[in-house]
Amino acid sequence: MNVDPRAAAWARLQLSDIAPRPLVELLRAFETPEGVLAATPAERRRWVPTDAAARLDSPPDAARLDATLAWLREPGHDLVAWGDPDYPASLLEIGDPPPVFYCLGRRELLTRPAFAIVGSRNATPQGCADAEAFGAAMSAAGLTIVSGLALGIDAAAHRGGLTGVGSSIAVIGTGPDRVYPARNRALAHDLAAKGLVISEFAVGTPPLKQNFPRRNRLVSGLARGVLVVEATLSSGSLITARLAAEQGREVFAMPGSIHSPFSKGGHRLIREGAKLVEIAQDILDELGMAAAAAPSADPVVRAEPDPAPVSERL
Amino acid sequence: MNVDPRAAAWARLQLSDIAPRPLVELLRAFETPEGVLAATPAERRRWVPTDAAARLDSPPDAARLDATLAWLREPGHDLVAWGDPDYPASLLEIGDPPPVFYCLGRRELLTRPAFAIVGSRNATPQGCADAEAFGAAMSAAGLTIVSGLALGIDAAAHRGGLTGVGSSIAVIGTGPDRVYPARNRALAHDLAAKGLVISEFAVGTPPLKQNFPRRNRLVSGLARGVLVVEATLSSGSLITARLAAEQGREVFAMPGSIHSPFSKGGHRLIREGAKLVEIAQDILDELGMAAAAAPSADPVVRAEPDPAPVSERL
Repeated sequence: MNVDPRAAAWARLQLSDIAPRPLVELLRAFETPEGVLAATPAERRRWVPTDAAARLDSPPDAARLDATLAWLREPGHDLVAWGDPDYPASLLEIGDPPPVFYCLGRRELLTRPAFAIVGSRNATPQGCADAEAFGAAMSAAGLTIVSGLALGIDAAAHRGGLTGVGSSIAVIGTGPDRVYPARNRALAHDLAAKGLVISEFAVGTPPLKQNFPRRNRLVSGLARGVLVVEATLSSGSLITARLAAEQGREVFAMPGSIHSPFSKGGHRLIREGAKLVEIAQDILDELGMAAAAAPSADPVVRAEPDPAPVSERL
Repeated sequence: MNVDPRAAAWARLQLSDIAPRPLVELLRAFETPEGVLAATPAERRRWVPTDAAARLDSPPDAARLDATLAWLREPGHDLVAWGDPDYPASLLEIGDPPPVFYCLGRRELLTRPAFAIVGSRNATPQGCADAEAFGAAMSAAGLTIVSGLALGIDAAAHRGGLTGVGSSIAVIGTGPDRVYPARNRALAHDLAAKGLVISEFAVGTPPLKQNFPRRNRLVSGLARGVLVVEATLSSGSLITARLAAEQGREVFAMPGSIHSPFSKGGHRLIREGAKLVEIAQDILDELGMAAAAAPSADPVVRAEPDPAPVSERL
C-alpha cells in the first residue's frame, strides 16, 4: 500500500518540528503541505522568520522518514492533518491543535461525540470498577470514551468504552508505534482493533516525561466533557480537568470518602465548580443526551457539523 | 427555690398556646407578660382578635401549670423568653422565633457562637465517628455544637461537642422533662450537666411526630452554619439544611461513596450549592475562625452583640 503524497508531505512537515504558528503562515501562503515543501527556502523566508523556515531547508532524517512512511503503509495506520474533513472539530477549538497526528484503528471515531474519563494510575479496585461502569454506560449511550491509556482509571475507562457502540479513543504520549506502559499492550491492541489510538508524536518517539502532560490537552480537547473518577491531589488528571475547563468543556468529578487520598482531587474540583456525579445519567443529562434505550439499540449519535476549512479556523 | 414571677407569667402564656403574632401585639400593649395576664379580657380584645384573646380568658390547666412550675423549681431548669438579655440573637433572625423555651443546663451557652451538625439516625459507624470528630474539633475551636438529640449522627455530634470548650446544645422535640429516644438518656443527662438541653414544648409534652420537624428550625436557627454528615434522601437533616439556607446560614455537606445511600443527601446538597467539607478546618476557614491553638487553650469566642430590645426585632 502506497502512502498518499499529501500524507507523506505532512509526515515530512511533522518530522521538521516546525512550530504550528509559522506552519499556518506557510500553509496560507503555499496552500498545501506539498506546496510548502516545494517552495524554495527564499520563498518560505518571505512568510516566516528565518529560524522557523530553516527547519524545512534540509530534508528530515532519512531513517525517521522511512520508518514513518513504513508505519503509514501498515493497514489501519493513518495520518490526520489540518484540513482533513475528519480532523476533529473539537480540537480546532483548543488553543494549540496539533497540525497532524497519527492514528491506528477506526478513524471514523474521530467525528463521534466524545467524553473523557481520567484518574489516578494507582486507583482503587472500586475506582477502576466505577470508571469501567461509567465508560460502558456512556459508550452505550453513544459517546466515545477518550482517555490516556495509563494504568488504573484510564485503562478501566477504555475497557468500559470498548463494550459499547461509542467505543474508545486512546490518546498516547509516545509515538504511534510504541505502547506505554507495557502492561497495557493487550488493551492497546484491542483499542487499535475495535477503537482508535492516536498520537501527535513522531513514529519512534519513546516515553518521554514531558510528552504525557502535553497529551492531556488532546484528551480533554477531543471531549465534550471530562469525568475525574479517582485522583490524588498530585494526579495528572487534575491537569486534564483544568485544561478541560480552560477549553470550555464540562468538568465532572466523582466524590468519595473524606478519608481516601483518591477522593481529594475530585473534591477539590467540585469545590472549584466541577459537577458532582453519582451515576452516568447525571452526565448524560448535563450533556443533553438520553441513555441507551436498550443495550442493542443504535445510539443516537449527534454528528459534529462538517468543519469549516481549517484556514478559517486557526 | 421559687419561680420568679416573670418566668411564671411566661409559663402561663406558653401553656395558653396563643400564637406568636397576637402575643407580640399584647406585649407591645401591656409591656410585660405579667401585664398581659393582669389585663382584663376586654382590654386584651382591644389589641388582638377575639379568638386569640380568648386563649387567655380562662387560666391554664392547673395540673399542667403546677407541673411546669415544679419543673422550673429544679436546679439548672430555666425558662428563656423574648426580651431576656440572653435570648439568642440568632433566633430573632429566623421567621418564627419561639416566644419562650425551657432549658436545662448551662444557660450561658445560648450566647456562644454555635454550629449545627446533623444527619441520619441509622448512619454508619464511620459516619458517626466523623460526626463525633468534627463536633470535637469545632467545639475545641470554640463553637457550641447544636443538634437534635436523635440517634446516629446527632448523638455522635453532641458527644464530640461535649469534649471541647464549646460544649453542645440539644434542641429536643419533647417537653423539657422528657427524653426521646430513651437510648439517648445518658447522653441527655450529660448534656444537661455539661452542656444545654432546650425545648420550646410544654412540660409533659410526649414525643409527637409533628414536633420534630418543627424543632429543626431552632437547630439551624441557633447556628452560624449546618454540616450534614450522612443523610439519606429521606433524612430530616435535609429539611434542617434547607431551613438553614432559608435562614441565611452556611450549609456544609460531607461527601461519600457514590454507592452509599447515606451519601446521597449530602451529594444533593452539594449540587444545590452546599460547601463540600473534608476536614473541620474547611468549615472554620469558611466561618473565619481559627482552629484551637492548643487543646487546653481558651477558645477565641466571639460573643454575639447584645440584642436590641426584643420589641424592636420582632
